Amino acid sequence: MKAVILAAGKGERLSQGEDKSKPKPLTPLLGLSLIERAILSAKESGIHDFVVVVGYRSEEVVKYVEEKQKRLGVNLDFVENEEWKKGNGVSVLKARETLKDENFVLLMCDHVFDSSILKELLEYAKKRGDKCVLCVDKPENVFDLEDATKILLERNKPEAIGKGIKNYNAVDCGLFYCTPAIFNALVEEIGKGKYELSDAVQCLIDSDNLEVFDVHGRFWCDIDTKESLEYAKNKMLKSLEKPTDGIISRYINRKVSRRITARIVNRNLTPTQITIISFLMALASATFFFLGEYKYLVIGGLLAQASSIIDGCDGEVARVKFLTTDYGAFVDSILDRYADGMLILGLILGYWLLNGGISVWIIGLFAVLGSFMMSYTNARYEGVFEKTGGGRRIPVRRDMRLFIIMIGAFMNQVLGMMLLLAILTNTEVVRRVFSIKRIITKKKL
Amino acid sequence: MKAVILAAGKGERLSQGEDKSKPKPLTPLLGLSLIERAILSAKESGIHDFVVVVGYRSEEVVKYVEEKQKRLGVNLDFVENEEWKKGNGVSVLKARETLKDENFVLLMCDHVFDSSILKELLEYAKKRGDKCVLCVDKPENVFDLEDATKILLERNKPEAIGKGIKNYNAVDCGLFYCTPAIFNALVEEIGKGKYELSDAVQCLIDSDNLEVFDVHGRFWCDIDTKESLEYAKNKMLKSLEKPTDGIISRYINRKVSRRITARIVNRNLTPTQITIISFLMALASATFFFLGEYKYLVIGGLLAQASSIIDGCDGEVARVKFLTTDYGAFVDSILDRYADGMLILGLILGYWLLNGGISVWIIGLFAVLGSFMMSYTNARYEGVFEKTGGGRRIPVRRDMRLFIIMIGAFMNQVLGMMLLLAILTNTEVVRRVFSIKRIITKKKL
Repeated sequence: MKAVILAAGKGERLSQGEDKSKPKPLTPLLGLSLIERAILSAKESGIHDFVVVVGYRSEEVVKYVEEKQKRLGVNLDFVENEEWKKGNGVSVLKARETLKDENFVLLMCDHVFDSSILKELLEYAKKRGDKCVLCVDKPENVFDLEDATKILLERNKPEAIGKGIKNYNAVDCGLFYCTPAIFNALVEEIGKGKYELSDAVQCLIDSDNLEVFDVHGRFWCDIDTKESLEYAKNKMLKSLEKPTDGIISRYINRKVSRRITARIVNRNLTPTQITIISFLMALASATFFFLGEYKYLVIGGLLAQASSIIDGCDGEVARVKFLTTDYGAFVDSILDRYADGMLILGLILGYWLLNGGISVWIIGLFAVLGSFMMSYTNARYEGVFEKTGGGRRIPVRRDMRLFIIMIGAFMNQVLGMMLLLAILTNTEVVRRVFSIKRIITKKKL
Repeated sequence: MKAVILAAGKGERLSQGEDKSKPKPLTPLLGLSLIERAILSAKESGIHDFVVVVGYRSEEVVKYVEEKQKRLGVNLDFVENEEWKKGNGVSVLKARETLKDENFVLLMCDHVFDSSILKELLEYAKKRGDKCVLCVDKPENVFDLEDATKILLERNKPEAIGKGIKNYNAVDCGLFYCTPAIFNALVEEIGKGKYELSDAVQCLIDSDNLEVFDVHGRFWCDIDTKESLEYAKNKMLKSLEKPTDGIISRYINRKVSRRITARIVNRNLTPTQITIISFLMALASATFFFLGEYKYLVIGGLLAQASSIIDGCDGEVARVKFLTTDYGAFVDSILDRYADGMLILGLILGYWLLNGGISVWIIGLFAVLGSFMMSYTNARYEGVFEKTGGGRRIPVRRDMRLFIIMIGAFMNQVLGMMLLLAILTNTEVVRRVFSIKRIITKKKL
């Protein structure tokens, strides 16, 4: 399957303001240009061959994308549309020769979207046989309704399309599964002097060649103005939460880490480098714990919680820049385990040097054991504990453990805090061993 | 797919001797009767419907199997062959009505076999279309060649079959994928007064309706005598080694655990109960370590190694009795981790109470950390470390760690032993983190 990406327009409204230096496809959004983002989003759905239609300042766009090609890891064809001023229908038609008679996906470089939409569009289209399928959403989900292309649906069948139609109940999301029928429609409409893609789509509607696919409110946005760029950025940052996030992570850590991610995403920091920074902060925290005195405990507690927050940023940067790898997640999990061990060792040593006694060692060792077993049981069942049985579990995952460590340090209650950790974690492990049996019996894992 | 199991014969030679109390299908072999073993072996290949042909002492056999039906978890039909004395061809023909026109698998209740053979036979047969397929092996792999049914192959095509043929280069393993063509052949041969299955198979050969599948020396055995029963038992016990076994496991632990398994397999001990016994032995070992004095160290060391050996028996009993479950393996791994933690805690406390000092705590904590990380890295990558890159890894899995603990205890070198554990395990973890990157790049996990 090939994808055609329209990147020929000028983007007048977006470039009003300071940044006239860049053509629209090169506009940065959370560390990637719009054109890179469109390509990488499609690549997540298994598309590796792209036809990019360029027009306005085409040389700059081609040069920029070609330089990134190796990192993008896809095949690229460029098609020039010198008549880009006429309308986007002309741009689509220019891709005809390169595509021959294959079906393809049509994307706009200035539309960002949740890549699950494209994945499901492709699955849906496969089932529908040889019809064009257009992604649609409800009008209330659109950022700039005035500028959107509207659609009238009657019992889920499209009846009319256009920017100016008065009677509508859906909008076009800018993701379009096309058969070669689109080219015939374009030729016909362009012959009549109608140069917009939506004119050809109306033609497909009239010949009963179009179906629609509802994106059900999942994220997509047409980037036409500074405001929509800002809107998209905030929406994307919010979507970085994970369904498996713990309480502390959801209500505290993510709120901070998102802001940090928004700032560091444009720098050349790799996710692994961020992982290492978080690990070093945990080691620094352990060192302060080791010093034992109350003032150092407070600093150590703050550093532990800060490390926990930064530990969210590596994944966020990876997801927002399409850099997620199994290996990255693996290294992250290994360093997290060592950080957990070092933090508790620092606490034990600091307490022991001041107060002596054997109990801190024994309790500390059980806290280490319990922390590890939380991660180990999870690794053994690949997240089944995090996905299922939400209500009754003891919320003592890493976000909560580091939070407890911080609070314990603030209260100068090292022994009590470690006892709490040891009890909560090991109790939760025992609960898991018994509950997994029910889950296995029910779900036949 | 249904399986027909022939369980009609008398098994004269096997019952010569003391045990005339049982019909042959009820002969026990490593905790299961031959008929249970045949059914459960086939179940592992996804067969859930069985037709059991009974004859000699049929009531006893039917009653026995029906009592076990719930535990077996399969559907059973019984067919009585009152003419069982005539020959096994008659028994096969009796199953005709129950099977209608389906293809099926024909098994002998007195043949035990590695269930991977049946799995691959089914896959092979699926590809060969509508031919009968007989499993064959080289004559040198047979326990009792004289009694075996011989086959002459010419360029992998069967030419002749029979117990008495002089010219042969293969033998029949007793696993047979059949199409309804076998029934026509049986009717024809029985009409001529030839009652053996091999007569009908010769008929299939003559009409070019038979192919063969080479089992390539994998384990199977025809149980006809006391000697072959003993031979099969030893072969099966030897096959309980796992390819992932460590050095100590392979050369020491398995040799002992196999013998223990052979003895306990007939008792009603479940694998989970054995897991718990092994865990309790580790706790006892930790308690002796805690007592600190040299004589207790020696006892603790022996108990640790004994626990390591018993830790092999749970899996062995489970495999030999078809009781393997994901949950059992999960509980085993959780208890192993706690046992590891307790053993090292016992060592630390015992040493510290005698000698004091902080170093034993720090070294001990790193030994706990390293032991855990060995298991954790393995769980994260589901055994990829054990499966790949054999040569250069540091052999410090659980079998080796418990062995090192025993040797350290014998030598009264607790601190040195824990330091060794801490260094070996953590170094191996670091090596894994770097080597997994190469493996991922190469294999695209």
